[in-house]
Amino acid sequence: MFGTILIANRGEIALRVARTCRELGVRVVAVHSTADRDSAVVRMADEAVQIGPPGAKGSYLNGLAILEAARRTGAEAIHPGYGFLSEDPDFADACRAAGTPLIGPPAAVMARLGGKISARRAMADAGLPLLPGGLDPLPAGRAAALADEIGYPVILKSSAGGGGRGMEVVRDRADFDGALRRTRATAQALFGDDRVYVEKYLETARHVEVQVLCDEHGTALHLGLRDCSAQRRHQKLVEEAPAPGVPAELAERIGRDAVRGARAVGYRGAGTFEFLLDPDGRHHFMEVNCRIQVEHPVTEMVTGVDLVAEQLRVAAGERLALRPEDVRPRGVAIECRINAEDPERGFLPAPGTLAEFVPPGGPFVRVDTHAHPGHTVPPHYDSLIAKLIAWAPDRPGAIRRLRRALDEFVIAGDGVRTTKRFVGEILDHPAFRAAEHSTTLVDEMTRPDPASVAG
Amino acid sequence: MFGTILIANRGEIALRVARTCRELGVRVVAVHSTADRDSAVVRMADEAVQIGPPGAKGSYLNGLAILEAARRTGAEAIHPGYGFLSEDPDFADACRAAGTPLIGPPAAVMARLGGKISARRAMADAGLPLLPGGLDPLPAGRAAALADEIGYPVILKSSAGGGGRGMEVVRDRADFDGALRRTRATAQALFGDDRVYVEKYLETARHVEVQVLCDEHGTALHLGLRDCSAQRRHQKLVEEAPAPGVPAELAERIGRDAVRGARAVGYRGAGTFEFLLDPDGRHHFMEVNCRIQVEHPVTEMVTGVDLVAEQLRVAAGERLALRPEDVRPRGVAIECRINAEDPERGFLPAPGTLAEFVPPGGPFVRVDTHAHPGHTVPPHYDSLIAKLIAWAPDRPGAIRRLRRALDEFVIAGDGVRTTKRFVGEILDHPAFRAAEHSTTLVDEMTRPDPASVAG
Repeated sequence: MFGTILIANRGEIALRVARTCRELGVRVVAVHSTADRDSAVVRMADEAVQIGPPGAKGSYLNGLAILEAARRTGAEAIHPGYGFLSEDPDFADACRAAGTPLIGPPAAVMARLGGKISARRAMADAGLPLLPGGLDPLPAGRAAALADEIGYPVILKSSAGGGGRGMEVVRDRADFDGALRRTRATAQALFGDDRVYVEKYLETARHVEVQVLCDEHGTALHLGLRDCSAQRRHQKLVEEAPAPGVPAELAERIGRDAVRGARAVGYRGAGTFEFLLDPDGRHHFMEVNCRIQVEHPVTEMVTGVDLVAEQLRVAAGERLALRPEDVRPRGVAIECRINAEDPERGFLPAPGTLAEFVPPGGPFVRVDTHAHPGHTVPPHYDSLIAKLIAWAPDRPGAIRRLRRALDEFVIAGDGVRTTKRFVGEILDHPAFRAAEHSTTLVDEMTRPDPASVAG
Repeated sequence: MFGTILIANRGEIALRVARTCRELGVRVVAVHSTADRDSAVVRMADEAVQIGPPGAKGSYLNGLAILEAARRTGAEAIHPGYGFLSEDPDFADACRAAGTPLIGPPAAVMARLGGKISARRAMADAGLPLLPGGLDPLPAGRAAALADEIGYPVILKSSAGGGGRGMEVVRDRADFDGALRRTRATAQALFGDDRVYVEKYLETARHVEVQVLCDEHGTALHLGLRDCSAQRRHQKLVEEAPAPGVPAELAERIGRDAVRGARAVGYRGAGTFEFLLDPDGRHHFMEVNCRIQVEHPVTEMVTGVDLVAEQLRVAAGERLALRPEDVRPRGVAIECRINAEDPERGFLPAPGTLAEFVPPGGPFVRVDTHAHPGHTVPPHYDSLIAKLIAWAPDRPGAIRRLRRALDEFVIAGDGVRTTKRFVGEILDHPAFRAAEHSTTLVDEMTRPDPASVAG
């Protein structure tokens, strides 16, 4: 195992990773912006290095400063958390060259899976089911013809896109050319890469994903499915494991497909294979996330596996601590994200100081948070304040427990607005309770009531 | 299920019970002394009734005031937690007569198991293995002869005793008569009952106990063993589930004995059968606790069962939510008690105000506490501030995780001393790590070093 690890992240995930390091006897180096100098991970770390100003570009996205901190502190590897540099193959390459590898798959694998088109092609080669669509960037001339072939609605996606940006749904041929121009322009502006492809758009689908773990000794396994259909503009709000209402045989088939895809590209470490599940019970590969996910705790709670510990083991060249037959999920875990955003105002970030902050407790409740009373949510980063997770033997029990814990959660401060009440409404929604919701649930909940608009 | 429950307790257990009530949709009435008027359970409760002064006698032991509060608030049942009135058959009788039953076994069962002599006799009748000793109060004349027959060392126990009081170990016949006089006098003074009996004393033994659950529909099951050998003067400090180093076949035999004992007396609800396990692997019935235990979370974490929810179901006349074949313990959970006591000064209570109080978090860590920053630990009650529990797939992992969480726990305040460091030393002790410790471990750790005394 490593002697020292540098955590190139902030917020709850940096603290989460630091805790596992501590349990494994690994020294922790935290890097932080000037805005985070008093953060929980900085206090917990054995050593902390200030790497730049509040803006992420100068600090958490500043690969050179991070590598210099790793060199100076004797770190042997870098844990990137999620977001920031966690899926940047160039940074992964630089880390390897500097002798402080990034904890994740090899840079080449990351590059191949990071491009949506190359990932789609890799998974087609591995025999995974894809939505009808191209395996190449759309050529200038024949794009509309391909869309015709697929049949409307279709979705245009930027190959380099992520986080729900650089995509547009097209429902009618008349709109196609304009949408393609817009998507290309957005892709070029956001990602410096105007390659766009097209695939069939599913109006109603579930977002399911598979957690995989692979080591370099030939073990590749999956830890079951998560359902993350409750999302707003591709930003997940409520996630759960296992995926409700998916027959065991289908879940196992999806899981096996993810493992096959991971093996086909030589995946290493923890990764997530995302699929859309259509109303006919067919799954379609969507993308791979080459990092720990925000929603990883729900998988941990049903499997008993510490995913960050497994990431560290794999990166250190060890074998995974478990074999496929050791994975025996139990019960149901549901997570909801408490963001400092105002659902009444289009989920606009609402940072501020948390005068009151009392997380809930009790059996089978987990709160992943870096916040504390008096904590100021900085405006520079994503607005996640806390993840609240509850487990129970069955789904109604998990919903009841999470609902109770959510009610108990006290968060207040001048100007602070959060998604707490909104995620409670998702948990209360009849479609969610019946596990009959799709990725459109949140849009339906937030769509202005026509009557009130007319009035 | 009940509509409203009154919680006749305080501190962490009152909060613990209230959380489950909330999850089951049960209204919560808290009763509190004037010292606890701002407590967490009072804030969480739907209704709170102040029942008396800080001293427990006027409040948490004031059965009439509690019953009056139940009547006025429309409570349908009373949850007693542990301690206070939780094992008082007269109070259980009064609750039943008032139409607000006490959640626990019937008063007659409580009375029979509450007396150590009658409990011993009941379990002998049920065929459970007992330590050599009497089944009757010691007669004035033949006491020493009985001790001779058993063989020294023996232990004198007050029939009405509890919490480790009213007991004395006798290692030599010459000390017997004096010890008997002292024990009788103590028993009379503390419990108003001078009946004393004698049994064989085991110098080296493990304290193991079985969690049972029984409903009125014929289901009686056990949830496996806990080991609570790390105790100081019969006060448990570190507890774990399952009992380490106990072969599965023996654990199952002990579990079955507990269920047989529970069935024999018509037990209802949650109860704990305590045994001593001798170095030859033989178990000996010790006593039954007719209530939820302080250490119940370790059983919850390995089984996934909410024990308080099961208590409520049974009391409401429902069936247990699980059958014996549903009990499939997983991994290892260990709890340590953080008391406001000074291990440097003979574990003297050290109450005060917690200027800093930051409980740890992370995967598979649970903190049961009513404390918060600024909380004042009152001097009137037991000194438990928090229970810290960690789970992992195996025992070394659980110890590592608990150790990390303990290190992370920040508790500070003028004059406040806690057992935090001391329980850490237990977790680090080679005998504990090897699971080779017995009930003498803490005594050995706290015995003054002869060299330093001589110096």
